[in-house]
Amino acid sequence: MPNIQRLNTADADFWPRLETLTAWEGVADEAVTAVVRDILARVRTEGDAALLDYTHRFDRLDAACAADLEIPAERLRQALATIPTERRAALETAADRIRAYAERQKLASWTFTEADGSVLGQQVTPLDRVGLYVPGGKAAYPSSVLMNAIPAKVAGVPEVVMVAPTPGGALNDLVLAAAAVAGVDRVFTLGGAQAIAALAYGTATVPRVDKIVGPGNIYVAAAKRQVFGAVGIDMIAGPSEILVVCDGLTDPDWIAMDLFSQAEHDEDAQPILISPDPAFLERVAASIERLLPEMARRDIIEASLCRRAALIQVRDLAEAARVANFIAPEHLELSVEKPEELLPLIRHAGAIFMGRYTAEALGDYCAGPNHVLPTSRTARFSSPLGVYDFQKRTSIIHCSPTGAAALGRTASVLARGEGLTAHARSAELRSQLVDNP
Amino acid sequence: MPNIQRLNTADADFWPRLETLTAWEGVADEAVTAVVRDILARVRTEGDAALLDYTHRFDRLDAACAADLEIPAERLRQALATIPTERRAALETAADRIRAYAERQKLASWTFTEADGSVLGQQVTPLDRVGLYVPGGKAAYPSSVLMNAIPAKVAGVPEVVMVAPTPGGALNDLVLAAAAVAGVDRVFTLGGAQAIAALAYGTATVPRVDKIVGPGNIYVAAAKRQVFGAVGIDMIAGPSEILVVCDGLTDPDWIAMDLFSQAEHDEDAQPILISPDPAFLERVAASIERLLPEMARRDIIEASLCRRAALIQVRDLAEAARVANFIAPEHLELSVEKPEELLPLIRHAGAIFMGRYTAEALGDYCAGPNHVLPTSRTARFSSPLGVYDFQKRTSIIHCSPTGAAALGRTASVLARGEGLTAHARSAELRSQLVDNP
Repeated sequence: MPNIQRLNTADADFWPRLETLTAWEGVADEAVTAVVRDILARVRTEGDAALLDYTHRFDRLDAACAADLEIPAERLRQALATIPTERRAALETAADRIRAYAERQKLASWTFTEADGSVLGQQVTPLDRVGLYVPGGKAAYPSSVLMNAIPAKVAGVPEVVMVAPTPGGALNDLVLAAAAVAGVDRVFTLGGAQAIAALAYGTATVPRVDKIVGPGNIYVAAAKRQVFGAVGIDMIAGPSEILVVCDGLTDPDWIAMDLFSQAEHDEDAQPILISPDPAFLERVAASIERLLPEMARRDIIEASLCRRAALIQVRDLAEAARVANFIAPEHLELSVEKPEELLPLIRHAGAIFMGRYTAEALGDYCAGPNHVLPTSRTARFSSPLGVYDFQKRTSIIHCSPTGAAALGRTASVLARGEGLTAHARSAELRSQLVDNP
Repeated sequence: MPNIQRLNTADADFWPRLETLTAWEGVADEAVTAVVRDILARVRTEGDAALLDYTHRFDRLDAACAADLEIPAERLRQALATIPTERRAALETAADRIRAYAERQKLASWTFTEADGSVLGQQVTPLDRVGLYVPGGKAAYPSSVLMNAIPAKVAGVPEVVMVAPTPGGALNDLVLAAAAVAGVDRVFTLGGAQAIAALAYGTATVPRVDKIVGPGNIYVAAAKRQVFGAVGIDMIAGPSEILVVCDGLTDPDWIAMDLFSQAEHDEDAQPILISPDPAFLERVAASIERLLPEMARRDIIEASLCRRAALIQVRDLAEAARVANFIAPEHLELSVEKPEELLPLIRHAGAIFMGRYTAEALGDYCAGPNHVLPTSRTARFSSPLGVYDFQKRTSIIHCSPTGAAALGRTASVLARGEGLTAHARSAELRSQLVDNP
């Protein structure tokens, strides 16, 4: 049975122990970095030929030509038509809710006119083309296809290009059906760093994109980090985490299962429970012990619980909020009687699941908000994936002659203060000021 | 006289030449990366002692203790009180306009209630603490202090910590005055990778921040890239660029001076002019030749013009927009009769300066929109620095029991489709469904 770490805020070494518990270094493996650098360089110079070679080597897939790496749209529609009806309905329900929530996030352009007739504003436009990485094998999640592609389409991105490795040629019909539901425009059977390279630089067959999103293994993460700048990327995710704050009155089986739902993702996933009630912490520990043997992924769950889980006793819920703010969790469940009273104390979290009924799993699939969330304490400074990640802003400045003259006087003083006289003169020319180089 | 490159869209090799002209690889120098890695590691483990040592070595500054590296608030107020009145007024006018524009960018929280009583929303909160890097020496720009610090304060960031190297102890009063005007909370005389390390990891004296913004040399840029993840960072900027699209009817001296105002920043800055009128391109070339000898920074301007400038002839303004969209310029001047007719064709730019009177220099100092803008074609996927960079979003999900039951059925189907049974059971427990592990 898992030996779960116990912490208590009353202990003198609580905060350093909490820091150690939650520390996660996305170790930049030098060997991986070097391998990825070579793959990126080769795809950049050799294009399709390099793609075919790497796909043959890493995915045991022999395509006659690069065009064969594309899955035709008809195949996506066919997947959607042939999966079980119940699953198709669930995908479509989830997609509708994700889309409806995303619509509310959409940024709009604005302008305003000043007294002298000058116009200032901010123009919002979608990205031209976005790449979506979908991992192959055990982590091929149709829900991730919905969560990454739908906000891009809501933003108005004309072309969403998906890449997914298909080791040995095995296609995942649920993933293809999700791509059809989400409105993905093109799909290529490509994976690893070579897929990221193709999206970042373009080849004769794979179009170059402006931003790459989606999860992947360490090679994919290293490749995304290296192409950042040439294209935009989303966050590089660490292991998934859940922090449950409970007043001690929720069914302990519910809480145990919520912790499992995070732990089953991977051995490094981090499930943490905080409660002011020490007896409740023990009841949840007992539920964990009783329920664990029933779980399909019990080995992964047990590893996660032993390595990275904790049961934390606090003095009261206000202190629980302070601990939560330190952790800045990806997922925060406020499993308490009046979550709305606790909410104002929370400054940092990816998503907050309020009340006893809001299981995190609902948010993972279909509540509407995105399940791509900041991990490893990065919710201190970053946000869930959203429509805004597929839009960008452009400042608009349109000075009237009067406005230009007034601004020109201020700009001239500051530019000369910085020793930038061409700036000053450029402003002065419009202000009809005397030239004074 | 500068030999400026001429391009014409009618030439067969136009697009490849344009790609070569605008390519900029932010070369990741291996030696710099290694030096920076050592500095970061040492500050992280040794804290203040390492800071004092590096500051002694690199900035020839001997502080008795780390606390002496802080510039007291009184010193900032004193700088503001003693700079020339005209400069103080210009700083305050610029700050007021930057603040007024930033207020309009502020994101607000929202929620909505569904028919079954479930609540969904997005909570917006400011970052706790932000670090602002201000370069020393020739590139110490008070305008950058305003542009970086004011949006953070408008976002509601409680603590803005500025670091600026003061080689040999020389303080720049205009920079300190700008910090006072912008509401910067603390200032340390620190620079280089060691300053970035102190902000990212914290020391006994320098508080750890959540995000670091501001320009710097290659050591600073490399350090920001390496600490990204532990803290947020803004974009890593390439050389500054201006693209002027002109119908041929603006005073060629004005356009020449606008090109100079970009070129005077640095030898790698990129000034480009596009016009459908070949005679106008030659008139601007003549203005450049005539005005250049008068310019204080003529050597830098000439180097930039020879290395990276271009005069581009196009068929018409619609084609000019296509070229502009390829370049995705940091600054785009639409120096034409009806800029509002050209605007809808522009998809990618950091900031657009509309009409003949809107010199880019006005935007650099005091028009209101931020002068920190995406460079090197990154406006394809990124935005000007803004209030939104100092705010983050948290998803809110509060399911009613009825809502949880309905969502639970969808989540259960999808979770089982992905083989994640703990997710399914966590959702089912709230849906009162029969357990089926």
